[in-house]
Parts: sequence; C-alpha cells; structure tokens
Amino acid sequence: MATEPPRRLRFGIIGCANIAKKVSRAILLSPNSTIVAIGSRSLDKAVAFAKENGYPASAKAYGSYEAVLDDPNVDAVYIPLPTSLHLQWAVLAARKKKHVLLEKPVALNVGELDKILEACESSGVQYMDATMWMHHPRTAEMKAFLSDSLRFGQLKAVHSIFSYNSGTDFLKNDIRVKPDLDALGALGDTGWYCIRAILWASDYQLPKTVTALSNVEYNESGVILSCGASLQFRDNKLATFYCSFLSNLTMEISVLGSNGYLRVHDFVIPFQESVGPFYVNANTKFAELSIGIEPAPTEYLIETDLPQEALMVKEFASLVGKIKENGSETEKKWGEISRKTQLVVDAVKASIEKGFEPIEVIV
Amino acid sequence: MATEPPRRLRFGIIGCANIAKKVSRAILLSPNSTIVAIGSRSLDKAVAFAKENGYPASAKAYGSYEAVLDDPNVDAVYIPLPTSLHLQWAVLAARKKKHVLLEKPVALNVGELDKILEACESSGVQYMDATMWMHHPRTAEMKAFLSDSLRFGQLKAVHSIFSYNSGTDFLKNDIRVKPDLDALGALGDTGWYCIRAILWASDYQLPKTVTALSNVEYNESGVILSCGASLQFRDNKLATFYCSFLSNLTMEISVLGSNGYLRVHDFVIPFQESVGPFYVNANTKFAELSIGIEPAPTEYLIETDLPQEALMVKEFASLVGKIKENGSETEKKWGEISRKTQLVVDAVKASIEKGFEPIEVIV
Repeated sequence: MATEPPRRLRFGIIGCANIAKKVSRAILLSPNSTIVAIGSRSLDKAVAFAKENGYPASAKAYGSYEAVLDDPNVDAVYIPLPTSLHLQWAVLAARKKKHVLLEKPVALNVGELDKILEACESSGVQYMDATMWMHHPRTAEMKAFLSDSLRFGQLKAVHSIFSYNSGTDFLKNDIRVKPDLDALGALGDTGWYCIRAILWASDYQLPKTVTALSNVEYNESGVILSCGASLQFRDNKLATFYCSFLSNLTMEISVLGSNGYLRVHDFVIPFQESVGPFYVNANTKFAELSIGIEPAPTEYLIETDLPQEALMVKEFASLVGKIKENGSETEKKWGEISRKTQLVVDAVKASIEKGFEPIEVIV
Repeated sequence: MATEPPRRLRFGIIGCANIAKKVSRAILLSPNSTIVAIGSRSLDKAVAFAKENGYPASAKAYGSYEAVLDDPNVDAVYIPLPTSLHLQWAVLAARKKKHVLLEKPVALNVGELDKILEACESSGVQYMDATMWMHHPRTAEMKAFLSDSLRFGQLKAVHSIFSYNSGTDFLKNDIRVKPDLDALGALGDTGWYCIRAILWASDYQLPKTVTALSNVEYNESGVILSCGASLQFRDNKLATFYCSFLSNLTMEISVLGSNGYLRVHDFVIPFQESVGPFYVNANTKFAELSIGIEPAPTEYLIETDLPQEALMVKEFASLVGKIKENGSETEKKWGEISRKTQLVVDAVKASIEKGFEPIEVIV
C-alpha cells in the first residue's frame, strides 16, 4: 500500500536561535507546512522551545541536531545556526535527503556555499536562503514598476541601507559579533540584505568590481560592525550601500531610473505585518517657475494575508511538494541568487582586507 | 539733508536666465526688497523680461550688464549668468560696491571663488550663494533633529541625490552642458546641492578626501552628465551622493545617526511651496519576534509663509540692511559655506580626472 504524500511539508528545526521563533511561527502559519521536530544540543532547551513557540503536541524534541536529520518524518530542515556551522549541517542535511531552508548569511564564503549547493544538487533536495522580504507581494509589485520602461526606464542608481543599533549586550555577547561564529559581522547580517536589494534591482546582474568605502568600524576581535561599498557594473549605474550594527534601525532601498524613482523604507521587515508601502515618482517634472513638481509621488500599499516569512515557507514547501509529488526538478534560482549575493559579500570583505581596493567579482 | 536709508533692498538683475524669473518673483515677494534694474546684452530682451515678470514700472531696463552695475540706485545684484562669467561680473559688481547674490555653481573652481570673495571682502559688500533650500524653515527644524543627541545621536551615514531628466533639448542646447559656459555640468548644477547637503549634515566639517565613483556619464564635449562620489571624513561616517541630468527628478537627503534617522524627499525644491515635509525615526527597535518596529516613523510638516527663495532674499536683504543702516560687518558664513562646497566640487572633478583616485581636500 503506497504511502499518501504528506499534505504539509514536515519541518525539523536545528537550533533554538531567536530567529527560529519567528520562522517557527511562519511554518505554523503557512498552510502547507508544519513542524515535526526540534533539535538542540540541550534536550531541555528543545522541549522548552517547542512549548514556548506553540509547536504541535506531536512534534519531537531532540537533544542533538543529528537526531532531527535522522528522523524519517522530517522532510525539510530550517537551519538557524551560526554561520560557521552552516557548511557542516547544511551538507549533512542534504546528504540525509532533507530539503534545506538556510538562514543568512548562508556561508562564510562562496567556497563553503558551493559545497552546500553541490550537496543539495546531488541529493536532489531544494535549497532556499531565508531572505524573507523576497517573498512579500510588495517585492513583485516594486519589480513590476522597475520593469516598466515608460514609468521607470533604465536603472541609473541604487542605494540601500540596513542598520540597527544593536546595543551593548548584543555587541558583547551576540553570535553575530564573534569571529568564530559569524565572522562576517554586520556585512553578513545586514549587508547581505543591501547587496540582495542591489542585485534584485539589477535583475541579478553581477557587478564587475566591488569597492569597499573606507568607513569600516570593527570590534576588538576584528569583526565588522559597520561598512559600506560601491558596486561597479559594466554600464554606468551607481550602486552603493551601508550596513551597520551601530546606527538606528533603518531599512531603505532607493532606486533611480531615467524616468522614475522608487523608494521603500522598511524593505527587510515591514513596519506593519499586514501591509507593505512603497513610493514612486514617475516622469516627474518641475512645475512652472520650478516652484514644485508634477505629478506628485504615489504611495502604494500592498496588503498581504500572510507575513512575508510565512509566504517564504509556503513557497519553499510548494517547491518541495512539486518535487515529492510530481517528480519536478529542484528550483535552481534560489541557489543562484544566494550565490551571487555571497560573491558580492566576499568581494566587499576582500576589498576591506586589501585596503579598499576594487575587487573583481569572479563567477 | 541726509538721504533716508531705503526700506527695501534695491536689486539689479544681470542676465535673463530662466532661474532669474523665479528669483525675480522672490525679490518681489520678500518684504524688504525690490527690483530697480535689469540688464541683458539685448535691451529688448531686458524690457520684455521686466514686463513678463511683473517688475515695478519704475524698474530700469538696460542693454548691458555694466549699466546695471553703474546705476546708483542699485544696492545689490543677483547674478544668474553662466558659471564661466561669474568671476568677471561678480568681481566687477563688488568693486562697484554692489552686494552680491550669486547663482550656483558659484565659480568654475575655488581659485575663482576666492577672487570673488576677496573682492566682496575688500569692498565690504555682502556675499551669498543662491542655495535656496538653506533658507526654508524646514532646514532649521531638520538641523534641530540632527543636533539632538538622544533622538539622533552621532552622525553615521549621509546619502544625497539630486537628478532630473533634462530631456533632449536641454542636452543639446542648455548652457549647463556647454564646456565654455558651465563646465561643471551636472556636478555643478545638481551635485552642488548634494555636497551642500552632506556638509550641512556634517556641521560643515570638510572631508579629508573625496573619491569619485566610477559611473560618470559625459556628453560629446566631455561635460559631466551624471556622477557620484564618496567623501571620507576623519571619523568613520559614510557620505555618498549621486547627481545627474539623466535620471528622473529626485531630491533626496537621508541622514543616519546612532539613534535616529532623517529623510527628506524634496530638499532642493519642496513638492509644495507652502509646506516642507520630512520624516524621522528615533530610537527605533524591532517589535517582539521582529515582526515590525516601534515606534512608528514621524512625519513633520513645516509650513512657510514665503517660498524658500523669498526667505533667502529676505535674509540677504536683512544682512545688507544691517551693514547699510547699522554699519555691521558683513556676514562671513555664507562665503565660508560656499567655499567649502566648491572645494568638494573641485575634489570630485579632480578625482574623476585622475581616474577615481582619492583627492585630498586642501583648505
């Protein structure tokens, strides 16, 4: 008797990081997924985490990550571990035929990411990084504007900021400032989003070179706490970003085209969960005597029935569903986008290390 | 019998540029100024300009610029001529004891500007550049926020854009794309504002070095149509800008501090003449589970009874009034700010010419 295909993708979570609370909620909110297991190095912690985050009573709690990967009821794993552990655990998950939803930054460098992607590829499991904003319906609406040759035209300049003022406790204790855990610091944690935003606005065209801007702040261990960079493309567009653990929470993309302009002020995490605004100027002219403009900017409010992270899970579960139920190929684009983002992260880091020299981005 | 001091500053205008229409209106709107003369190389043009722009019937029209400078009823001149003519006419105006309101970009380089400033200084006449947004009451309100150590904190990053899509006629015929008239192109016309915005946000601290970003677009004559740059300060703050004749009309400043964030989307020319908005986030934190932020951003709407260009004229006329009526010293700050702006303009240009090398800013 054939087993019925599961209607919901069954997730195992490895690690009880803070971000796992948000993603656990998202998995439980998404209509095509559920949580069947959580693993921590401490069984007590796993049990408590499952309880605190409203896991189904049937969800198993394990005192190790391996146990989650060995559970035959687990279809897919969400990996919120420190970046330095991604290579080991994502590769092992893929070898155990678990689909991989991987927290960002996905790896310490593109060499590590390639091993993860190869493991997913050879096991035929789906890979996706957990860059949530990609899945908000607003993102597609904004892309539609950027693709409008009459209202937006040719891309000329893009600037992005993601920063938050992390505070003294974070700066002392968080994994994101520890060189052995998240060696990419603010570049990996917040710069990742800015770089993704630039690539997204550029239709994933890679820059030719990347030049860090000489305003880097480090902690005592040499981990980056703030930095900026300029990306040079084959055409003349300008792309710059700034990322930081030391500035007020700010999440900006501004995209300037020959005929239009788009700005969004909460691109990473919408200020409100149910609606994402963005702002557009198109074919803007000075009014008579240059004492104003015409037409006025337009605000778009894009509603969403599910939070963006639940839409991410839903998309991931849908791709896995097609693989499991229809024998579809894995969707390669998520790995490709991840890899391009990581290539630019690596180039910024290399540019900083080489005294702000332009670094060629080699695919 | 002593002559009564004039209650209104009596302006002469030299040149009938488009921008002179807006400033003529401003002079007539300002309560402490009026127009008594207009000069053009063509008398007919001067006569027509005076008529079209509602000049008082008593205003004289002249067929030369010299005639305006020789008119004893003229207290001050507004100079909207192409930049390449500023040195000659601003210096001559100062020597003829006329106070000088000078259109920006004020000079082709700081050497020229220094000659203008020296001429004003030695004649005891007031100098001011026509950077209108400095005089909007919004600008002072924004500065108050940036000076608030609790709500804004330490300046970390500033980014500015000023661009407009100038169109084919402009790109073919306008003085601003002619190497013999406005050799600074978009850098002088629009970059000037971005640089001023960065200096304004930095309390007029000059950068140590300036590095142009390698995305310059030129016309056939080698005039800059778009460019960007990064400014390096002695501390770690990031400052970048983008200016262009080839992108949609956009006028942005975004200023990020350790505790707060400020953005303004119409800093050069408010979208509406009577009210200037700006937007502030202060001490912003992620909400529980990072599914939003607290507190929400605040919109400030700063009303003004006079357009910013009329407030500029009013301030200029007030300074001149104090000199004429009370024997006050000239106000030096406007020359100093102008000079700092020009120094950075020059450094950006030098960096472009030297293949995007960092250029030291030498005071």
